[in-house]
Amino acid sequence: MTCDYIKLANGGVQRLQPYSPGKPIEELERELGIRDIIKLASNENPLGPSHKALEAAKRALEQVHLYPDGAGFGLKTALAEKLGVNSNQITLGNGSNDILELVARAYLQPGEETVYAEYAFAIYPLVTVACSAKPVMVPAHLYGHDLAAMADAINQNTRIVFLANPNNPTGTWFNDVALDRFLERVPEDVLVVLDEAYFEYVEEAHYPDGLRRLARYPNLIVTRTFSKIHGLAGLRVGYAVSHPDVADILNRVRQPFNVNIPALAAAEAALDDTDHLENSRCENTAGLGQLVEGLNQLGLEHIPSVANFITVDCAGEALPVYEALLREGVIVRPLGGYGLPNHLRVTVGTARENERFLKALGKVIKAGAR
Amino acid sequence: MTCDYIKLANGGVQRLQPYSPGKPIEELERELGIRDIIKLASNENPLGPSHKALEAAKRALEQVHLYPDGAGFGLKTALAEKLGVNSNQITLGNGSNDILELVARAYLQPGEETVYAEYAFAIYPLVTVACSAKPVMVPAHLYGHDLAAMADAINQNTRIVFLANPNNPTGTWFNDVALDRFLERVPEDVLVVLDEAYFEYVEEAHYPDGLRRLARYPNLIVTRTFSKIHGLAGLRVGYAVSHPDVADILNRVRQPFNVNIPALAAAEAALDDTDHLENSRCENTAGLGQLVEGLNQLGLEHIPSVANFITVDCAGEALPVYEALLREGVIVRPLGGYGLPNHLRVTVGTARENERFLKALGKVIKAGAR
Repeated sequence: MTCDYIKLANGGVQRLQPYSPGKPIEELERELGIRDIIKLASNENPLGPSHKALEAAKRALEQVHLYPDGAGFGLKTALAEKLGVNSNQITLGNGSNDILELVARAYLQPGEETVYAEYAFAIYPLVTVACSAKPVMVPAHLYGHDLAAMADAINQNTRIVFLANPNNPTGTWFNDVALDRFLERVPEDVLVVLDEAYFEYVEEAHYPDGLRRLARYPNLIVTRTFSKIHGLAGLRVGYAVSHPDVADILNRVRQPFNVNIPALAAAEAALDDTDHLENSRCENTAGLGQLVEGLNQLGLEHIPSVANFITVDCAGEALPVYEALLREGVIVRPLGGYGLPNHLRVTVGTARENERFLKALGKVIKAGAR
Repeated sequence: MTCDYIKLANGGVQRLQPYSPGKPIEELERELGIRDIIKLASNENPLGPSHKALEAAKRALEQVHLYPDGAGFGLKTALAEKLGVNSNQITLGNGSNDILELVARAYLQPGEETVYAEYAFAIYPLVTVACSAKPVMVPAHLYGHDLAAMADAINQNTRIVFLANPNNPTGTWFNDVALDRFLERVPEDVLVVLDEAYFEYVEEAHYPDGLRRLARYPNLIVTRTFSKIHGLAGLRVGYAVSHPDVADILNRVRQPFNVNIPALAAAEAALDDTDHLENSRCENTAGLGQLVEGLNQLGLEHIPSVANFITVDCAGEALPVYEALLREGVIVRPLGGYGLPNHLRVTVGTARENERFLKALGKVIKAGAR
């Protein structure tokens, strides 16, 4: 063989460093031969999904020899009603990751630019590079988005700006005034992707609802997911709400059957279960308080968070702490890849899981694993 | 609003005509208000999936609040063992549609070319155009691939050739000698995607196994699916087997969680159920015979097929026949989009479904719906 199939790939693809997900429980079981592991690494809902969603998915399995409804009629109709938008504004995705990729593939050409914030979700630069385009990172302000600097970074080559509110992995957020001031400054031919994956957790009075800004800003694309508070990460459903023309384009680019049968059914049923959503939010608020208190007692700083995770400053290299926690059967997320080598991101678990994490962290730190 | 968000999209995307799937049963129910519909439009397995697969999917739903194992360790290990290849040669996809798209996105740049056969699967030109590249269609020979002409069509701009064996929607196939002669003529830096979505149905002695040619042709990518004989179309699982370097590239481009939790579990379990596979193959062979006999009795020609569908020549415009069949509660697939306006593709159903289709077809034709 004389041909190099790595070098034959497109320039951007050759440079791709794939997304590094949270370590699966089974993987740690295989590697260390331990049991009774808790995973606080991927911001999943520790309460699981709504029972209604689970039942709907189970029933839907009876149809799995058939192709899914590629148009997603049922889920789109339910979403449109719930959100007060039209069906033709919605694009369904195989998780909101799919949506982020669709926007990039539809609107980005090689050499063009996207703008995103330092410490923002790793997928934004990834989907950009995969299109052989250039991700432009704008330094963060207090670990959060510096929206004024981001607006300044927009130039003739910019096609897309990625915003996350709240941001993952820092848990920071920006308010309605800041968002509107930013959107006013963005030219109409630059798309703004507002990633609201964690919006259901936020209880701040001035937290802005992206959907209410769609009529005013046709270049705005709001993305959301069933992976977080709805507890359906394993089924992969996300969606975008946008101007109908943008939705038309995204729907042309997506795979014809990008969301599968149990996923469509579960997501539709999940929308109905407001009790589950409310419980999940309450548990999270309590759990976040528990973690903050525990970290304070351990004398560790954290980044203030409005989401279902908290990012801890280990006051030294975090990787040894991460590895020591693995040996205690606790999986959290190291953030070296985000330029935060001293930080660990911890998902808010159940009260019991939070307690176990705090105990393990205390033990590990006492043993000097940093 | 002064910006046109359709025209703002990439050139290829603007020209995209999305894939037109088989009509879902619920859609026909909504449109015509009828019940007791049979769908022979999407080449699904009428026996459904293996019970083992279904049970595995059900069990896996207990974990759906967690992200899937993005590496697909369990399924890849099982596939590697079953197929006698290494795990690092495998790429899992959200259906093999995902794989076809990944190859295009990884290796195609705007303006470059792919080669595919007339009457071949609609997704090949679609994934090409989505990358703003140029699909070059090579005229068919007796509704099948003209491999010599396809080899002739390869030039300096060609990056990928798409082959389907058997082909969908015609059911034609090519033998081992023809494939080897073709592969010998393809330069090493042109990738050959050999789509074997229907390979399990083929009972011809000289039908070639793509996997056995991988060692000799490092530019070969074999794609397969769990949507057809395995009866898991609604769960979206496909895979590619290729040179490890090609697999490395495809795995960099794919979404981190492209295959979801019940899908991974069901596919792994399906591999074990050789009885279900054997039953499905036998039923299909019998059903294909039943359809051929029935069509002969109706005096209608068909394209000889080795797959789980058969393409019927209506000896006149097929669309009115298709529409009349819908009113009988029978969904088949019109092929006007493939340049076959007189043909309908019919999936082999159960004996009862086949009988119902043949009766409806007889009635419709007698009523003059062509």
